[in-house]
Amino acid sequence: MSKKLTSRAEDYSKWYNELVVKADLAENSAVRGCMVIKPYGYAIWEKMQAELDKKFKETGHQNAYFPLFVPKSLFEAEEKNAEGFAKECAVVTHYRLQNDPDKPGKLRVDPNAKLEEELVVRPTSEAIIWNTYRNWIQSYRDLPILVNQWANVVRWEMRTRLFLRTAEFLWQEGHTAHATKAEAIVEAEQMNNVYANFVENFMAIPVIQGLKTESERFAGAEETYCIEALMQDGKALQAGTSHFLGQNFAKAFDVKFANKEGKQDYVWATSWGVSTRLMGALIMTHSDDNGLVLPPNLAPNQVVIVPIYKSEEQLAAITEVVNGIVNDLRAKSISVKFDNRDTLRPGAKFAQHELQGVPLRIAIGARDLENGTVELARRDTLTKEVVPLDGLIDKVEGLMTEIQESLFNKALDFRNTHITKVDTFEEFKTVLETKTGFISAHWDGTAETEDKIKELTKATIRCVPLNQEEENGLCVYSGAPSKGRVLFAKAY
Amino acid sequence: MSKKLTSRAEDYSKWYNELVVKADLAENSAVRGCMVIKPYGYAIWEKMQAELDKKFKETGHQNAYFPLFVPKSLFEAEEKNAEGFAKECAVVTHYRLQNDPDKPGKLRVDPNAKLEEELVVRPTSEAIIWNTYRNWIQSYRDLPILVNQWANVVRWEMRTRLFLRTAEFLWQEGHTAHATKAEAIVEAEQMNNVYANFVENFMAIPVIQGLKTESERFAGAEETYCIEALMQDGKALQAGTSHFLGQNFAKAFDVKFANKEGKQDYVWATSWGVSTRLMGALIMTHSDDNGLVLPPNLAPNQVVIVPIYKSEEQLAAITEVVNGIVNDLRAKSISVKFDNRDTLRPGAKFAQHELQGVPLRIAIGARDLENGTVELARRDTLTKEVVPLDGLIDKVEGLMTEIQESLFNKALDFRNTHITKVDTFEEFKTVLETKTGFISAHWDGTAETEDKIKELTKATIRCVPLNQEEENGLCVYSGAPSKGRVLFAKAY
Repeated sequence: MSKKLTSRAEDYSKWYNELVVKADLAENSAVRGCMVIKPYGYAIWEKMQAELDKKFKETGHQNAYFPLFVPKSLFEAEEKNAEGFAKECAVVTHYRLQNDPDKPGKLRVDPNAKLEEELVVRPTSEAIIWNTYRNWIQSYRDLPILVNQWANVVRWEMRTRLFLRTAEFLWQEGHTAHATKAEAIVEAEQMNNVYANFVENFMAIPVIQGLKTESERFAGAEETYCIEALMQDGKALQAGTSHFLGQNFAKAFDVKFANKEGKQDYVWATSWGVSTRLMGALIMTHSDDNGLVLPPNLAPNQVVIVPIYKSEEQLAAITEVVNGIVNDLRAKSISVKFDNRDTLRPGAKFAQHELQGVPLRIAIGARDLENGTVELARRDTLTKEVVPLDGLIDKVEGLMTEIQESLFNKALDFRNTHITKVDTFEEFKTVLETKTGFISAHWDGTAETEDKIKELTKATIRCVPLNQEEENGLCVYSGAPSKGRVLFAKAY
Repeated sequence: MSKKLTSRAEDYSKWYNELVVKADLAENSAVRGCMVIKPYGYAIWEKMQAELDKKFKETGHQNAYFPLFVPKSLFEAEEKNAEGFAKECAVVTHYRLQNDPDKPGKLRVDPNAKLEEELVVRPTSEAIIWNTYRNWIQSYRDLPILVNQWANVVRWEMRTRLFLRTAEFLWQEGHTAHATKAEAIVEAEQMNNVYANFVENFMAIPVIQGLKTESERFAGAEETYCIEALMQDGKALQAGTSHFLGQNFAKAFDVKFANKEGKQDYVWATSWGVSTRLMGALIMTHSDDNGLVLPPNLAPNQVVIVPIYKSEEQLAAITEVVNGIVNDLRAKSISVKFDNRDTLRPGAKFAQHELQGVPLRIAIGARDLENGTVELARRDTLTKEVVPLDGLIDKVEGLMTEIQESLFNKALDFRNTHITKVDTFEEFKTVLETKTGFISAHWDGTAETEDKIKELTKATIRCVPLNQEEENGLCVYSGAPSKGRVLFAKAY
């Protein structure tokens, strides 16, 4: 606990990995690329889940659960989707182990228990879900279907990092079915808005809403909406996506409906998801060299109270005051922990709560009791002030809002000062080398140019912003005409 | 929707399967033995989850998440546990698909992407978790660890039934680590109590708490506590289990700690779980030939209001009154749905809500408006009464409690009248053939006798009740002395 983190300036990537482990968020497991989400990390994820789930239900969605496994024949039915995920699929081929005749005490796969058809562990659930929807949909009266699933998925990535890219991760995936193209597009846009709203207002992370280019789209989508955030090291992170799937899955799985005129038509689809990757975005947006910084909305403990005492009598007197504070804070729905462990000194407790990002620390000692004061320490600004006990609860309540807003504004300032407009490819390369963040530049709209720029600079088009201004210009690489700027960046 | 269910008397098993599908709870999927939990069924499961999760947190547990996959070498480390689950394991052997060179447009497992070590899809997580705990525990100060996980697990069962036995199911699994044997036993008992309390008070299903015999214990446990319920067809259903695991997993995974005296000792363990199987218990305890019967605590909609009208004016007048009722009920935290669909007649709506087990239906028509009344229909008793609008909210609130209690008492009566004491094996066999339910009988405590009785009658020892009375007797099969009765039954 006490050993200091590597600083961000020294090695950003090392800082991140150390922070995740030392703040007790997650750790690597015995399974290559799969993580263990520890209780403290999971408590933050639960807060994200609860808020998102509420928003999904408010917009008319219901939860359901579909199988973990996708039979190979269903998996391959939508070709683009299959092609996009085939290279990273965990595949179940057998359903039994047996004693290994050559190695006593060891087991082996039973060669007689081979499945007739291999099962893919879902990397995403469009295939299994659209195969199910076929039986749910006959007429326009059965539409829309607005379903979400909270689940684990597996993508056998070769290079993994805790939260950011793991072989197994937790997510939610919405899968909706509609009678018209227009309605499906409205749904895809709505859910991208829900994500933007959640990430900005709840996680205090500013995002840019946009459309992915064709080569960055979800495999099988007609259009991918996304929210893009900027991390402190100037790399972009895709924080959520919402796909308009057209009739691709309906055609692949033969899902038709009778419309109001009685004619048969294929159903229109969307899917949308965010994952435990958001934990990575949270960490890399707000945290500092002392550890995690949490916005109050996501903190398992919003306030921690540390007693400073030299005798049992002092502790007893402090405890009495603290009990009052705890009750009053809880009455305001502020979560608070009285850290009265007798195994750690106050300094060690301070360090731990700092490392774990508790937004506000209250320290209270014998002199405070005499003076009717406490010491408040803000995690985000690392500032301290002595304030009177009288009025403390209102003060704390105000700080919860202030810290939440301040974190957002700080991140927004950083993001806004890290968008650079460039008009030549020389400039593009120089900016990429000397400055981090988004590059706003004209692009000719072709995949060739996009690929070439990626090859030469490792920067990708993060999105075509939804609020893109019309502006006549010339593609930064090819010089061909363009009607507006898109955002490039190196990305996670 | 309108087609009637097979009656329980006609074919109980068929009634169950039809009810699950027709009430929109779940259905079979394209994956052998795996189910789709539909939105209505999942909404009930979410209510169970929320209440259980609250109880786990109240008793000091935190949630976490561990990998879906267990490397074979970890899986086989605790021998009894491995032996118990090896025959029903889904095994991942490859991590990539590729285009099938022989079949254009089809995929096949890439033979070059074979995993070095096979991965078992978790049938239960003791192995992966205790392998993780080894790094979390050094001293008694790190104990206890009180962790729960909500997850999917896979057991490749040959005969499956929706909710009751599926290849993949959803569950929670608690995994705790303790410094002393006594503390671990207290934990295992506490969690069995939590389950009993939840199932009785929230699901309205009476249970008997007991201990499993050695042959019915969880593979790797020293003692298995359980709660046993009785279904309407007289078969028993194990509704939850809590295991005292001794030091078995600590030894298998070398998890030691320094105790207060500084000596190294192996850690003591428990695990405990309930699953979507509880949905099966819920259905088979309360439902009738008209469909599902839900206790108010678990009903996604506790009240449904159906308007009965012949004109738009009547509907408008009814709607105005209904809006008031809806607001007043919601203010009392009673969930209510105004079913004003214009695509179905009232009779069809009544049938659907009956099939789906909505506890209370309010019908309101033009004459009711004149008289200041509504019609209340209770799902559990299928009784109707006309009551004044005045005082309706209190009446409904009272009925929520009354229905919840009435369902429990009805199930308790049934259970209590279906426990038969028998003292000879002839009697045992006769009762099994002529009467259903639990048989309370003396047993000599040997696995031989237990096996023999199972072989001859298909009845198993469901549990040795925790409140077993001391009573000297003779084993119903062997005639050897016994100190108390145990409960036998045929079981799900």
